[in-house]
Amino acid sequence: MKTTIKDIAKEAGVSIATISLIINGKAELFSPKTVKKVNEAIEKLNYQPNYFAKNLNSVKSNTIGLIVPDVSNPFFSKLANSIENALNEAGYLLFLCNSAYDLEREQKYINEMLYRSIEGIIFASAENLTEATIQQLGKSNVPYILMDRPSRVVNNGVFVDDYAGGVIATEHLIAKGHTKIACLSGAEKFVNISERGRGYLETMRKHQLTPIYSENGTLTVESGYEEGMAICKKDISAIFVCNDLMAIGVYEAANELGKVIPSDISVLGFDDITTAQYLTPKLTTIQQPIEEIGKVAVENLVWRIQNNNKAVENYVAPVTLVERSSVRLEEN
Amino acid sequence: MKTTIKDIAKEAGVSIATISLIINGKAELFSPKTVKKVNEAIEKLNYQPNYFAKNLNSVKSNTIGLIVPDVSNPFFSKLANSIENALNEAGYLLFLCNSAYDLEREQKYINEMLYRSIEGIIFASAENLTEATIQQLGKSNVPYILMDRPSRVVNNGVFVDDYAGGVIATEHLIAKGHTKIACLSGAEKFVNISERGRGYLETMRKHQLTPIYSENGTLTVESGYEEGMAICKKDISAIFVCNDLMAIGVYEAANELGKVIPSDISVLGFDDITTAQYLTPKLTTIQQPIEEIGKVAVENLVWRIQNNNKAVENYVAPVTLVERSSVRLEEN
Repeated sequence: MKTTIKDIAKEAGVSIATISLIINGKAELFSPKTVKKVNEAIEKLNYQPNYFAKNLNSVKSNTIGLIVPDVSNPFFSKLANSIENALNEAGYLLFLCNSAYDLEREQKYINEMLYRSIEGIIFASAENLTEATIQQLGKSNVPYILMDRPSRVVNNGVFVDDYAGGVIATEHLIAKGHTKIACLSGAEKFVNISERGRGYLETMRKHQLTPIYSENGTLTVESGYEEGMAICKKDISAIFVCNDLMAIGVYEAANELGKVIPSDISVLGFDDITTAQYLTPKLTTIQQPIEEIGKVAVENLVWRIQNNNKAVENYVAPVTLVERSSVRLEEN
Repeated sequence: MKTTIKDIAKEAGVSIATISLIINGKAELFSPKTVKKVNEAIEKLNYQPNYFAKNLNSVKSNTIGLIVPDVSNPFFSKLANSIENALNEAGYLLFLCNSAYDLEREQKYINEMLYRSIEGIIFASAENLTEATIQQLGKSNVPYILMDRPSRVVNNGVFVDDYAGGVIATEHLIAKGHTKIACLSGAEKFVNISERGRGYLETMRKHQLTPIYSENGTLTVESGYEEGMAICKKDISAIFVCNDLMAIGVYEAANELGKVIPSDISVLGFDDITTAQYLTPKLTTIQQPIEEIGKVAVENLVWRIQNNNKAVENYVAPVTLVERSSVRLEEN
């Protein structure tokens, strides 16, 4: 077992309280003889400098928590990687927590992190942060940054312009001559996905085209496949899929239905996960600047830590269309 | 700023040492009046129960560290996810660290984790653990589990049978009628990759076939592409690529050279990352049982924590061939 303060106390023949005070820099309260005995015991038993003891007064953990809904989703693993790299440069360690799209588990992690005197938290939140959680964070005075899913909280966020992404995607398909354009989106609880869908809906209306809209997607490949099996049977020439994982599922569905991408159906995704460029045909998609948003999230969080938990303005990063081979020019 | 023990001391009009002792369960040393003053100050200032203080004597952090070389590599993000899920069930939180294939950064993380009284460490090590690190871990008495890259340390490991995987892959290609079989492997420092290559080399020799072997791979898609551009120009009908990421690069290279998979070149990978089944053609590969090894690693680590850091035997999981569409029957 690891040497504990109790072992040191026993070895030195003094009380635990004495050891506690001495290792917390209160040696002046004791005789040099006692201090010497304690130091000798620490050396003899190879007592590891104890982070908890050392940090008792300063309450600095140099640790940042990151909560993602699914670290095996390539978007979040890439985001975690970018955040971890930026934190490392800033001298922080990363506590990665996986909520598994479970609000209860997310709350458990928040409690554990506050209990551990974490210095800041970055949320790539499973769903919307609840009012109760926001109040809890405010009360504990731990700086946080919200990512990926905007909340009704109006600041401390680092997001991408999801709505604009939906508009860009739909305008691109229309510019390529498509008019029968479907959209696979997600429920309102996935705020960012839903915003992409709203961009599609408003653009379709603006061009007086009829939306063919599904909000049944749950962001996984499987869900893209299931919805894709229904949507690809409809009379459409293009589909905007609100994340790349679901676009992969739509590829699978189209393939199973004997529809060729892009000659039968054009597909346009969102995120630009690494896999997008390894699909056949390579996926045209809306790119999120993952490196940039990870870096800004860390910068803003560190700023909040250093500035007495003052709020920071939302940062909204622009998205860009990456044209590959999954959208064809539709000749009318 | 977060309320600190100093604020409480000021509010209650007592010394920091007094607060420290009271919140560490030594209230009996003081008068009820002092204890009441301190408790009132804690309540008034909404002082967060301090993990460091609470854990001063017990030295239990309920935190496990995991070091991976690259969390954005889908193999490691899937592994991290499986480990995090198993830890969550066992009541532990995960401290995820990304070494970025940098031994110095890995060492820094180890130091930080020991300093933070982490209860155990799982290494999906960047390279081999050095003797010095193993000694450091032994001295600090923190249980660890080694994954992915076997070390000369003979126990506390959870691995897959890389050598057998190389044999199975090569035997499969031979059984499909291939004789001109290349292998893209990595340098010896990547022990597991190198073992896969050894499985290939010995199987080729056993069948009296001439190996066409490269150990220049560095495990990334880019490196697979670069080496693939050279290898695919050779007189071969099949290639065994020692990880799936490099196999993706070989697909790109073959495509650029106008070679069709599998009719011109058969490709067989290793790992079975999620992307493998979304490639065209779907990649035949050697599957690592990621869920299983993640689960066993956590079980063994928790066992070591609960059993006074006793060593556990190495666990070697079998690998299996997953046949998809990237290997064709070669008619001679």
